[in-house]
Amino acid sequence: MRVAVVGLGLIGGSLLRALAAAGHEVTGFDADPATREAARTEGFRIADSVAEVVAGSELTALAVPLTVLPEVIPQLAGYDGLVTDVTSVKGPVRDLLKDRRFVGGHPMAGRETSGFAASEKDLFDGCAWVLCLEPHETDLSHWLTLARLFTGMGARVVPVTAAEHDTAAAQISHVPHLFAAALAEQIVENPLAGALGAGSFRDGTRVAATRPELTAAMCGGNRGAVRRELHRLIGVLEEMSEALEAEDPVAALTPRLRMGAQARRAWPATPGQATRVPAEVQALLDLGRSGGWVTSVGDTDVVALRPESDRKPS
Amino acid sequence: MRVAVVGLGLIGGSLLRALAAAGHEVTGFDADPATREAARTEGFRIADSVAEVVAGSELTALAVPLTVLPEVIPQLAGYDGLVTDVTSVKGPVRDLLKDRRFVGGHPMAGRETSGFAASEKDLFDGCAWVLCLEPHETDLSHWLTLARLFTGMGARVVPVTAAEHDTAAAQISHVPHLFAAALAEQIVENPLAGALGAGSFRDGTRVAATRPELTAAMCGGNRGAVRRELHRLIGVLEEMSEALEAEDPVAALTPRLRMGAQARRAWPATPGQATRVPAEVQALLDLGRSGGWVTSVGDTDVVALRPESDRKPS
Repeated sequence: MRVAVVGLGLIGGSLLRALAAAGHEVTGFDADPATREAARTEGFRIADSVAEVVAGSELTALAVPLTVLPEVIPQLAGYDGLVTDVTSVKGPVRDLLKDRRFVGGHPMAGRETSGFAASEKDLFDGCAWVLCLEPHETDLSHWLTLARLFTGMGARVVPVTAAEHDTAAAQISHVPHLFAAALAEQIVENPLAGALGAGSFRDGTRVAATRPELTAAMCGGNRGAVRRELHRLIGVLEEMSEALEAEDPVAALTPRLRMGAQARRAWPATPGQATRVPAEVQALLDLGRSGGWVTSVGDTDVVALRPESDRKPS
Repeated sequence: MRVAVVGLGLIGGSLLRALAAAGHEVTGFDADPATREAARTEGFRIADSVAEVVAGSELTALAVPLTVLPEVIPQLAGYDGLVTDVTSVKGPVRDLLKDRRFVGGHPMAGRETSGFAASEKDLFDGCAWVLCLEPHETDLSHWLTLARLFTGMGARVVPVTAAEHDTAAAQISHVPHLFAAALAEQIVENPLAGALGAGSFRDGTRVAATRPELTAAMCGGNRGAVRRELHRLIGVLEEMSEALEAEDPVAALTPRLRMGAQARRAWPATPGQATRVPAEVQALLDLGRSGGWVTSVGDTDVVALRPESDRKPS
């Protein structure tokens, strides 16, 4: 495929490398001249503008932050090929690109480092790559084209709607960052607590060390889902607090904790046998909802893995 | 010193080993005959009852769970020496032992394993060991005797009141366990979230895998402080949610996250220069409140370390 990658940070740079390694005809662009120079020095084909990089491409991957997308999208004016992105929030991006041949994506491949210098061609090997599939909106053939491309790089492609992605991201990433920040803040007022903190404090607060601007941008970009899930979890914490008021607090609290304990012990899920799933919107969405993913794409169906036990813990 | 250790699990067994290694005359007892036999086989002096183990001892360390203490304490009937304990909640134990020569303790040396087989003589080397000091109640000479004993085993002895300990334990251990359980529970209803979970979910939920009965007992035993700190943190989470409603959610949320980020990056604290602190109740409690600890005990003062920077992050 002829692919354009706009933005050559950790994700865009790694995508450039992975696509080149897989034999695709890939061209990159970054707003930063030094990054373009670094990529050229390594032998990659690099354009000097968005207009130049998308010219003649079949697919354009926008690998810039959410806040930069509104500046980049107008520069696609003369381009009518397929577009995808890699940002961590999918609802707002879906709105921004609703007049395009667009399939939203989100590779779950974050790490502490950033920038082109940190990029590597194997970054997506084994990583979950969300690809948004909206009933009556996404062109299934476009979705399958991207799923084929990314599974070819070793990614586990997860079919979901933008709304489902944003809820899940709030649950497993955005709200956990807020929980960590709230816990970490405690030792500012109480240095004694800091001196006594051990394993549960260390792990429960690790991501609180993330740059505050990044966490705020991530949560702010998904604030609808973050606020909804945060309020739901506050309700759970209030129920736990009520259980502690019971005559026998241990008996009242234990069943509530058992759910989380069983879920955490079974995580990450062991995949069961590979199965074939029809290449149809509802079947693919059902796969994603059950915690499964696509490992390769055929003409009329896909090969999929699901968690070995689909049962809820009893 | 002549020391009796009642209960030979991970903590009691390690205490038996550490005291013997430090040249003290130590005798152990455990309610389980197989544990007594295992300890005898290793050459330790083991008694067959609580009454026998405390006879002739200067100090008795109760290393049994909180729920077992009410059964053990009456068996100390004929004993009038010094008593300490190792449980994770200090207010209720203070009440149970208020008619004794008692100094409550809590070595922060938890780990995944348990039982005598997991015990080791170096378990307390470098660990924070809370020793409770109540103004107008604790005999300072008893406190200093225990501080000398435990610093001699390499522990960092932290002087605090029982109430201060229980608040700090709720903040850095008990509530973090509830947060982890609430986050882990989410993937029961939403397997998609489990499939997308990465680093922040993994770390934020790690302690949710703890046996639910243990977490419930720990939180239930300290429910006053746990409920108070949990409600305070729910207030913090609600403030974060309000910040996300602001016209510029990123600008509103960032300052709130900065506190936790700075605190977490500076944790664990680097100790400054060793200083001498008078062996007086208020001076010792001030040391504990500032996040400091005792490393050795002299006749009229102690050697102490404090976090290098006592300043609150700006």
